[in-house]
Order: sequence, then structure tokens, then C-alpha cells
Amino acid sequence: MGDPAGVSPELTAKLLALDEVRAAAKLVVIGDRRVLEEGARVANVTLDIDVVGKGAQVDASARPVLVDLGHLDPADVKRGEATAVGGAFATTNFRHALLMAKAGEADAVCFTPFNKQAMRYVYAGYDDEIRFVSDVIGFEGAAREFNILEGLWNARVTSHIPLKEVADSLTPEAIVAELALTDRCLRAAGFANPRIAVAGLNPHAGDGGNFGREEIDVIEPAVKMAVAKGFNASGPYPADTVFLRAKGGAFDAVLTMYHDQGQIAMKLMGFDRGVTMLGGFPFPICTPAHGTAYDIAGRGIANIGASRAALLLAARMASPAAEPAQRLAAG
Amino acid sequence: MGDPAGVSPELTAKLLALDEVRAAAKLVVIGDRRVLEEGARVANVTLDIDVVGKGAQVDASARPVLVDLGHLDPADVKRGEATAVGGAFATTNFRHALLMAKAGEADAVCFTPFNKQAMRYVYAGYDDEIRFVSDVIGFEGAAREFNILEGLWNARVTSHIPLKEVADSLTPEAIVAELALTDRCLRAAGFANPRIAVAGLNPHAGDGGNFGREEIDVIEPAVKMAVAKGFNASGPYPADTVFLRAKGGAFDAVLTMYHDQGQIAMKLMGFDRGVTMLGGFPFPICTPAHGTAYDIAGRGIANIGASRAALLLAARMASPAAEPAQRLAAG
Repeated sequence: MGDPAGVSPELTAKLLALDEVRAAAKLVVIGDRRVLEEGARVANVTLDIDVVGKGAQVDASARPVLVDLGHLDPADVKRGEATAVGGAFATTNFRHALLMAKAGEADAVCFTPFNKQAMRYVYAGYDDEIRFVSDVIGFEGAAREFNILEGLWNARVTSHIPLKEVADSLTPEAIVAELALTDRCLRAAGFANPRIAVAGLNPHAGDGGNFGREEIDVIEPAVKMAVAKGFNASGPYPADTVFLRAKGGAFDAVLTMYHDQGQIAMKLMGFDRGVTMLGGFPFPICTPAHGTAYDIAGRGIANIGASRAALLLAARMASPAAEPAQRLAAG
Repeated sequence: MGDPAGVSPELTAKLLALDEVRAAAKLVVIGDRRVLEEGARVANVTLDIDVVGKGAQVDASARPVLVDLGHLDPADVKRGEATAVGGAFATTNFRHALLMAKAGEADAVCFTPFNKQAMRYVYAGYDDEIRFVSDVIGFEGAAREFNILEGLWNARVTSHIPLKEVADSLTPEAIVAELALTDRCLRAAGFANPRIAVAGLNPHAGDGGNFGREEIDVIEPAVKMAVAKGFNASGPYPADTVFLRAKGGAFDAVLTMYHDQGQIAMKLMGFDRGVTMLGGFPFPICTPAHGTAYDIAGRGIANIGASRAALLLAARMASPAAEPAQRLAAG
């Protein structure tokens, strides 16, 4: 359960009421019974779950199980506000779930939306989920955020850095590493031979070197290296048309060189309806792309689509049956 | 008339058959009668026009007039191919129209799509339309390309330069100059007090300086200068959401800092259905945003929407009645 002041409680309750979701995974919810019940009331659904206390044995074979940490009274939640109380609830739940997965008691983690400010009230070093997860599970490898909308994945080589530093941050090795991780995550999600388009950096992908040489000097060599390694990669493509082609079905993923190159496109395509996946960790972590939606919290109108997609993706990626040889965890 | 190997002849013929277009302007077509007739045959429309030879008096009050330069036999056109013959036809027509406008014999210029390669066969220095027009009419001021889709305008501070040079190319003065030109063009197009959103440069518009300082050091000061001068400007906004807001009606124009920032968004929103306007010249120049569409040329299925929008915009911007005090030409 994510931030209690937003739509997370009602989304969690709605998820637990979906037959498709209940069939896809053995669900263990980490949170507080009272907050979840309030969410169910808002969402107008009936909770058909078992409830256990912290430290108890968890068996979710028959029915979803709530691990009731008993740490938040809904009366203490100021709906629509980022507070330390909310941040403490969300970080505690998230940490609990991550440690279960680390201990092999869960195969994947999902979370309903967090509020970054609320997280920072209780965990000052909360830059983003990747940093938090790395800290909690003691992970030192490379993990990345993927954005996924209706089967189209977006990964990026650079992210939260100044635009003027992007060009010098690109190396063939960095691009191939991101591409390999992208390929690995897509395979875990069920793509047999993922088609990955690599975006150029400059306008018109450099126009043959007229508007920048990174395509010629860095990105093309990276694509060639990737193809030589057996990846189904191609490019570099001009950034202003590659998403049109991907949307039309030409690719399963677009690897972009910088943050806004992909984010402009994904947000315009309605990425709020999509899923954010954290890849590279020993287990998949998924969340709806939208935020806490403080403005509509408690009204029961929050759309469940993105949360459902996030949970189904996590279930699929965690399932050893899907792609045994290529499981994310196998990396 | 643009490139004869693509859809330009049929689009020209279709335009001439639209009552709305005929009512909006006194139309003078520059081309060849035989090529236009072939276009009409393909488009399955009847040409109701007058035809005069080169150098003859042109009076388009009653009916559109074709100035028949008699310079191309359709039999010499290889449909679907960029050739010197096609480039010569298009450059000759465009030059003729530009010189008419320069001489005050036309208030605006429209062209159906060109093929850049074909243009280069006959005019090696053909970088883009702005360069060509500047050369032909001897213009030394600043002219810029605007992309327009369903009432939303996109202008940019930098364009065909390497991405890594963008940050250093931004100055408050350059941004304000682009903003002023954008405002002037929008007013000429009928916007009373155009709302112009200014995009940031870095991810999350720099996140308060964490991911780059250009927003704080350059773009915010530019927006303040612009507002002080009376422009209805605001920003900087994160690039990955500003087009969503603009699409929702919050702004009339988005001023972007670099080429792909706007092009990724506009192309995804269907800019091929839109209009490209060259602003800053003594008269407006408009064209459909899509290209020559060699693949569907001659089949009569080319969509007239963007060409119609281009012509109606040119007519509106050229009309002294629309915004007498703020005509583009008045600048």
C-alpha cells in the first residue's frame, strides 16, 4: 500500500477485488487493516482476504493475505496532503515488501502510488525508488526505470542529468549495457525476441553528421555491437518519428538517449495509463505510472487500469513458467 | 505547384475545387497547365480557372488564375522519384511566386510539397525553405519555421544544430526574440493575445537546479523580460508535460528550446495533418507539413486537409482586415 492520503488505499482494495488479478498471483498486501477497509469502502468493493499480523506465517494460496502492520489509523490521515505520517506508512510497507522479496518470500513487488515529498519527510535520502530499493536490499548493481504503455517499452541511457551533459555521457558500452538490460526485462515479460529501436541524439539523427556526430561516432557502433551480440536492435532513428513507428507496432521498445526524448512521447501517448517497471534488481518491481492523485482521492473514481497492468506485469515477470531460461532473476 | 512526382499536382487541383478555399483568397497558381490538368484528372475534379501565360496581366477576382509557365510535360515526370526535372519545376514555380509577393502582386505564398533532394539537383545550396526564400527575395532578417496543428503553434529557439550545442546557444535575448516573432505571427493569424508557453531545457525543467541551471539562469529571466514587454508568456515548463497542457487548451503556442523537444510532440499529435508556416518574412508562407508522399502519388487518395489548412492560414495572415495593426507585414 502506497501513500494513504491519495488513491492508493482504494486502488489496493479494487485490485484485490479483481478476479483477473487474484488468478494471476498469490497476493500479499502490506499495510494496515483499517486503512485498507477505508479504501474498500471508498472503492465500494468487498474484501475477500485473510488477515495476519506482522511476523505470522503467510499463506496466500487460497486467498490474498493482508499483513496488518497496525501502524496507521485512517483518522490520522489528512487526505490530499503529503505528510510524514503518510510517508512513514508508505516507506514501511515498501521496505517490508522489498525485504520479503529479498528473503525469497515474494517473487515480485508492486506498489500503489507514493508521494515523493511525503517519503522525504521520513527518509531524507529519498531521491527516487531506485535509490531507495538499492539502499533497502543492499543492491549495488545497475537498475533502471522502464516506462511501459500498452506493450511499448521505453528505456533510457541517461536520465536525471543536465541536457548539456547528455552527449558526453554516451558511450557505445553504456548504450549496449542499457540495451542488454532492456532486452532482459522484455524477455522476462514474455517477449521472445524483443525488437529494440535505438533513438538518435541530434535532430534528424544528425542528418549524416551535419547536425552532430554522436550517431556516427557512438550510437551506430553501439547498435552494431549489440547486433553482433545477438540483440534484435536497430537504429539510430530520428527521435521525432521513432515513437510513431513504435506506436504503429514496428518495435517492442525504444531506447532513448535522454529523459525527455522518451518522456515527451510516452506522456503524450497517455503514459499515465501505463506502468513503471524497475528493472535490474533481483526481482521485478512494478507500479502504475500515475501519481497519488490527491485531487480525486476518496471519491472512488480512481481508474484501476494502470494498477491492474502493473500487477499483471509483475506477476508475469516473476513467473518461472513464462521464460524459464531468461528470468529477470536469473541475471 | 510543388514537386510534380508526388501528390502536389493532385493537391493543387483539389484545392482549386474547394469552395471554402476559393472564397478565402484570390488564387494565382504558378505551374504548368498540362501538369495541373493531370493532377485534376487524378483528383477527379473539374478545373474552373482562367489560364494566362507568363508575363500576362493576372486578375483572379472572378476565378483562380493559372500562370502557365509551359515548362513541364507530365510525360517527362517519373512519378514517385526525386529528379532534377521535378526540382526545376518546383523551384521555378516557388521563385515565381516569391517574386510576385516581393513585388506586391501577392499577399501570401503557399506551396504544395517539395522534395528536398530534387530541389538540390537544381539548386545545390538548398538547405531548407528559409534559406531559399531569403536568397530569392534578398531577405537578411530572422525568419523561422512554425509548426501548427489544430490551432496549436510550436516555435523553437534552436533548430538544426547538434544537441550538445543547444545549452550554450540559449540566451535571454535569443529566447525573447523568438517569443516576439511567435507573438507577432500568432497575432497576424488572428490570436488577440496569444498565450505562449516556454519550455524548459532540462529534465523536470531542471528540478530547481538539480538537473541543470539553464532554467534559472537563462529561461526564467527571458520569460520575465518577455512579460515585462507585455507578452502573454509563461514558463519554463517541463518539456514532457507542456504539450499535454497545450493540447488541453492551456496555451496557443509552445516555444521549445531545441528541435526534437517540439517535433517529438507535434509529430505524435499528428502534425502531418498540420501546417508549416515560415514567419518573419515580409509576407506569410505556408505549406502542408507532410511531404511529397511519393508512395501514394497519382492514386487520388492524398488527403487535402493539411493543404487546405495551409492555404486558409495564409489567406488569414495576409488579410489586412483581420488584424490591421498587427499584420505580419507591418513588422
